[in-house]
Amino acid sequence: MSAIELKHGLAQAQAEIEQALDVLLPREEGPEASLFAAMRYAAMGGGKRMRGFLVLEGGRQFNVARNSALRVAAAVEMLHAYSLVHDDLPAMDDDDLRRGKPTVHKKWDEATAILVGDALQTQAFAVLAAPDTHPEPAVRAELCLELALASGARGMVGGQMLDILAESAVEPLTQAEVGRLQLLKTGRLIEFSAEAGAILGKANQSQRSALCNYGHDLGTAFQIADDLLDATATAEETGKATGKDAGAGKATLVSLLGLERARAQAERLVSQARSHLDSFGEKAELLRLLADYAIARRN
Amino acid sequence: MSAIELKHGLAQAQAEIEQALDVLLPREEGPEASLFAAMRYAAMGGGKRMRGFLVLEGGRQFNVARNSALRVAAAVEMLHAYSLVHDDLPAMDDDDLRRGKPTVHKKWDEATAILVGDALQTQAFAVLAAPDTHPEPAVRAELCLELALASGARGMVGGQMLDILAESAVEPLTQAEVGRLQLLKTGRLIEFSAEAGAILGKANQSQRSALCNYGHDLGTAFQIADDLLDATATAEETGKATGKDAGAGKATLVSLLGLERARAQAERLVSQARSHLDSFGEKAELLRLLADYAIARRN
Repeated sequence: MSAIELKHGLAQAQAEIEQALDVLLPREEGPEASLFAAMRYAAMGGGKRMRGFLVLEGGRQFNVARNSALRVAAAVEMLHAYSLVHDDLPAMDDDDLRRGKPTVHKKWDEATAILVGDALQTQAFAVLAAPDTHPEPAVRAELCLELALASGARGMVGGQMLDILAESAVEPLTQAEVGRLQLLKTGRLIEFSAEAGAILGKANQSQRSALCNYGHDLGTAFQIADDLLDATATAEETGKATGKDAGAGKATLVSLLGLERARAQAERLVSQARSHLDSFGEKAELLRLLADYAIARRN
Repeated sequence: MSAIELKHGLAQAQAEIEQALDVLLPREEGPEASLFAAMRYAAMGGGKRMRGFLVLEGGRQFNVARNSALRVAAAVEMLHAYSLVHDDLPAMDDDDLRRGKPTVHKKWDEATAILVGDALQTQAFAVLAAPDTHPEPAVRAELCLELALASGARGMVGGQMLDILAESAVEPLTQAEVGRLQLLKTGRLIEFSAEAGAILGKANQSQRSALCNYGHDLGTAFQIADDLLDATATAEETGKATGKDAGAGKATLVSLLGLERARAQAERLVSQARSHLDSFGEKAELLRLLADYAIARRN
């Protein structure tokens, strides 16, 4: 297998996740049509779908029913989309562009963007908890719990808070603090995405841990790669403003370690991520290629 | 039983729910302490706890374990608190005071308030999905699903969107449209609160429907009473700005029907709410008294 197969696998996952989101998000009709339209705009029509792809590929290791995995993939992408909509708000990162398109508060308004994020979060839990996601309620309840732990005050939202606090901090963050911030802000949800297929497939604890650890290292490598892109790529390549971290005096692993050492660290993490998949054989090859891609991409 | 017993029952529930929130919300420590502090500020230390009280009293009809009911009551109050924090934001209702205290974005800032609302919503689902809430996963999954349906795009958040759209609408809302708006914005969560004890107690469908219908009529009566208070009470009595609806030219059942007919409608709803409890006997007396209180209160 090679990067071509990964490209094909990602494109296939993107198309299927798009279709699942189309089914699972409310249609643009009735008096609240503008809310529904903005939810669809925020969650559909773009994005790498790395989190959703992780759910699908994780599920494939355990022969999880495709529809189950797709619902969970869509739920994770809704959760991710909510975090982006709120992160882009003027009171947060104040971004006008996301994936090359106007952000929700630019295309609609701030109130709509707040509500869109709120409703996308709720919808993610509605999808996970619904009987169609898995015949066993224990699996559905566990998915809800694990997603909540990954994304709440001690997960993603906690990380966003640290990010905001770091901007006004007198002392720059240490390497350990940056690592913890990024683990919370983006890592936990990537870990959940990688592990979700194992939850759906009722895998044993060692298989669950392997995927979770893979997600951990992949997420960290991905974040360093993002910071490297912010430091070295153009807005045209990434579809969003670049050079923002340095402009904001923001500590990242790149600013703390320098380009070369950060790159080397990302490579070590990719190799470590691959090693967690050793027991999975050929079936996990796309996950291994995704780890390579995490640091090879230009957007 | 009389209003004194209700007052005592409400005070008892408030104290127990406060204690449950204290346990279930993150402690103010570590680098994210300000997020945790603001979450606790938003969710604790005030409020009538009507929704939590409904969960507890509903659960009591079916001898639900107190700790189960308290966790669900706390989750509903977290969800309600999240909606208030976001509703108070400058881009939404732009309120400086809530329960006589500065709103979260006034005491902290807008970014913190956005994240506090986000994290309170997540925490509500984390609490419902956790094994401590009920030994049976099917009950936990159902609670997650029903809360999500009550509070998402087709529930509370949808209602908030309609409320915002109504402000800029050319035509004032009709009575039917106002009714639907309020059912979504506040009614669905009150219905869920009334029904949650029956879900926890694995009650039969007719008992579930009875409590849900009770919640429906109670919620509608409560909303009319709120609008009546906005039209007739002082800020000192209610702890928040009053006369806002008329000032904003906002259509409510009070503006559409006039004070007297609105009051009569609220009274009819209270009597109807009580009638749904006919099969519950003496044990449901506090729920009946709550319906009376919904329209008798001055705050």
